[in-house]
Amino acid sequence: MKIGKLAVLLTTLEEEELAPFEKQLEDVDFCLGRAGSMNMQKVISAVETAAKRQQIISEIVYRETHSLYHAILEALEGVTRGQIAIGDMMRTVGLKFAVVRGKPYDRDGEGEWIAVAFYGTIGAPVKGLEHETMGLGINHI
Amino acid sequence: MKIGKLAVLLTTLEEEELAPFEKQLEDVDFCLGRAGSMNMQKVISAVETAAKRQQIISEIVYRETHSLYHAILEALEGVTRGQIAIGDMMRTVGLKFAVVRGKPYDRDGEGEWIAVAFYGTIGAPVKGLEHETMGLGINHI
Amino acid sequence: MKIGKLAVLLTTLEEEELAPFEKQLEDVDFCLGRAGSMNMQKVISAVETAAKRQQIISEIVYRETHSLYHAILEALEGVTRGQIAIGDMMRTVGLKFAVVRGKPYDRDGEGEWIAVAFYGTIGAPVKGLEHETMGLGINHI
Amino acid sequence: MKIGKLAVLLTTLEEEELAPFEKQLEDVDFCLGRAGSMNMQKVISAVETAAKRQQIISEIVYRETHSLYHAILEALEGVTRGQIAIGDMMRTVGLKFAVVRGKPYDRDGEGEWIAVAFYGTIGAPVKGLEHETMGLGINHI
Amino acid sequence: MKIGKLAVLLTTLEEEELAPFEKQLEDVDFCLGRAGSMNMQKVISAVETAAKRQQIISEIVYRETHSLYHAILEALEGVTRGQIAIGDMMRTVGLKFAVVRGKPYDRDGEGEWIAVAFYGTIGAPVKGLEHETMGLGINHI
Amino acid sequence: MKIGKLAVLLTTLEEEELAPFEKQLEDVDFCLGRAGSMNMQKVISAVETAAKRQQIISEIVYRETHSLYHAILEALEGVTRGQIAIGDMMRTVGLKFAVVRGKPYDRDGEGEWIAVAFYGTIGAPVKGLEHETMGLGINHI
Repeated sequence: MKIGKLAVLLTTLEEEELAPFEKQLEDVDFCLGRAGSMNMQKVISAVETAAKRQQIISEIVYRETHSLYHAILEALEGVTRGQIAIGDMMRTVGLKFAVVRGKPYDRDGEGEWIAVAFYGTIGAPVKGLEHETMGLGINHI
Repeated sequence: MKIGKLAVLLTTLEEEELAPFEKQLEDVDFCLGRAGSMNMQKVISAVETAAKRQQIISEIVYRETHSLYHAILEALEGVTRGQIAIGDMMRTVGLKFAVVRGKPYDRDGEGEWIAVAFYGTIGAPVKGLEHETMGLGINHI
Repeated sequence: MKIGKLAVLLTTLEEEELAPFEKQLEDVDFCLGRAGSMNMQKVISAVETAAKRQQIISEIVYRETHSLYHAILEALEGVTRGQIAIGDMMRTVGLKFAVVRGKPYDRDGEGEWIAVAFYGTIGAPVKGLEHETMGLGINHI
Repeated sequence: MKIGKLAVLLTTLEEEELAPFEKQLEDVDFCLGRAGSMNMQKVISAVETAAKRQQIISEIVYRETHSLYHAILEALEGVTRGQIAIGDMMRTVGLKFAVVRGKPYDRDGEGEWIAVAFYGTIGAPVKGLEHETMGLGINHI
Repeated sequence: MKIGKLAVLLTTLEEEELAPFEKQLEDVDFCLGRAGSMNMQKVISAVETAAKRQQIISEIVYRETHSLYHAILEALEGVTRGQIAIGDMMRTVGLKFAVVRGKPYDRDGEGEWIAVAFYGTIGAPVKGLEHETMGLGINHI
Repeated sequence: MKIGKLAVLLTTLEEEELAPFEKQLEDVDFCLGRAGSMNMQKVISAVETAAKRQQIISEIVYRETHSLYHAILEALEGVTRGQIAIGDMMRTVGLKFAVVRGKPYDRDGEGEWIAVAFYGTIGAPVKGLEHETMGLGINHI
């Protein structure tokens, strides 16, 4: 089971386009959300809040927050293409995000992993002056 | 038309899963390929060679090579999550890539843009000791 | 014609020192300006505003804004030497900037390119506690 | 006295263009050289060797090597625009470099500083498929 | 229990200096080693091999390799101070490393974490032309 | 004499654990302090202020500020593991810092060097949701 692919499809596809993948989605836990901001901190916060509220990760276990946080950062590296800091500079993001938790490996002991995907637009804070962007982060949990 | 989304779908979906998107693909030029290596230089080279051979970009116009090169680098930032240099350190990538060229904007003057997507696995050079990874880069051409 | 060299000279030379290069400057479009701030976002904004107001790039064509934005970022990497984010940390910049637009290649099809140069000082926010810095970014437009 | 500006002019100007600056150059120690390679290590080595051979820095005092090394790295950040590692990926540089050593401050105690500038081309390893690039690094010595 | 502090002390202290900390070391699993190279890949490999051979992590469970790998990378960021790629450029490292595995949190559910520390010298490949360097990485396992 | 090791021990050890190293500390100048913030600028400022107030560096000589500033940045790269910019994103640091100034080399001409070490915790702004972190920077002064 490919948790990364599922996270990517959850963010890039429209609801009707997702139909063929519904069966695969039954085997994982996931949540969806939107974040639009010029401020990376708010984007991170939006994902963490959604994942905790929808019980994809536990609110009180630090190792789950730690795992999710690093998966978010990795996904944001894709969104900002290596310049997370610049995320705050003049650029607005309008992003759909998905967090997927599942067991991608058959081997015993590999346990659960988490995938975070973003898809949307990045650009000048003017509608139309922007292009697509996406990112995927994966971590063991 | 979303050239980024199409590039992402071309790399993540199996052939049969791509059927619903065939109509959208008629409006763009694209090529597909595979690159598997521990060496980023070979990955870049594989994409450039494919894009030139299948005439997605012109071999003799530097501005097209320049545009593609930066789109590839941006996509690799997503693949390596901000540490392209580490791409060469102990990690093998097995990647499917897509280059899509089209006109994502309605406005006159915006002209053609190019999207490069990678999807595959990154990890230790041992089968199974790896996880999914992806990246998307977009540039005007 | 070397648009990068011209941008560099426009920022480093005093007006009287520029005299020998006046003829070369006739073949390009350029604008000059100053930006002094502890905030990278304001520096980027100052260049974009100047370039649009003096019609070096079109205000309404996104691909021109996109091209200029990435040329500015590349030049700022030189200014901050790889740590754009740190630009905001305790350091003031006092920068002269130049944007040069021209055709650096003889071959048909290469079209126009843009160069952005910065030159000035970077340092603690106390006069004298600073040293020179510069950066150059180039992109196809 | 601006050691950074002098280093920049030494790399960007032709010999005849440098004439107006000859008097300023009498107040500093400097050396010039060329480095052309796809390998950053060779570029660093070329500058260090030239600076030692022409006695701009002492070969046996580590603090001078340490100071020059960091000034070179900062200048290379400008050349590669934040992605030194990528310097090795598919891109050739053909660079002129200058090392300038002098006393840029009037205050007692500030002592000597060193400036390293690069100017040249970076691009695909095919003549013409390249554009200008430059970088400047400054350090106390 | 502070696994990071223990890893740091294991690499910086001489054997006789470590005596006061022996009791704390009984509560964790750890291994020690040395890596000297101009090549980051060999440094990573030395740590992974030592940690597997001395059974600090399991050789066959990917999530443990994944956790250790990212802890090593984080520690190397400290060693190379943000420029891992430059690790390979002209600089030799002579490093002592420690891997410590333990339970730093009292709360149920936090489970085991891993710390990787490096301490040694980095510099020109000439004895004496080098200075101290260190790094610490921590991850949940 | 190892100024880096002393800086590391000053930040990681409790007062009573430092006793065996008191004699070595007599040969260097050093100061200690604490910085707790979500803002890197405040952390840098806390170290600079402490080092000047306790006369480890001169307040009026720029080259000493310049040297300290770069040593602090290098140490922060270890603390934030290559992503200084992210230091400001959602993460609080509670850090102890030490600045050590001394002569680590026997050779004439090497003169004084400075070491900056940080040790403490980094994590979500909730007590307990954090892990250890440290960093070391060294520069000639």
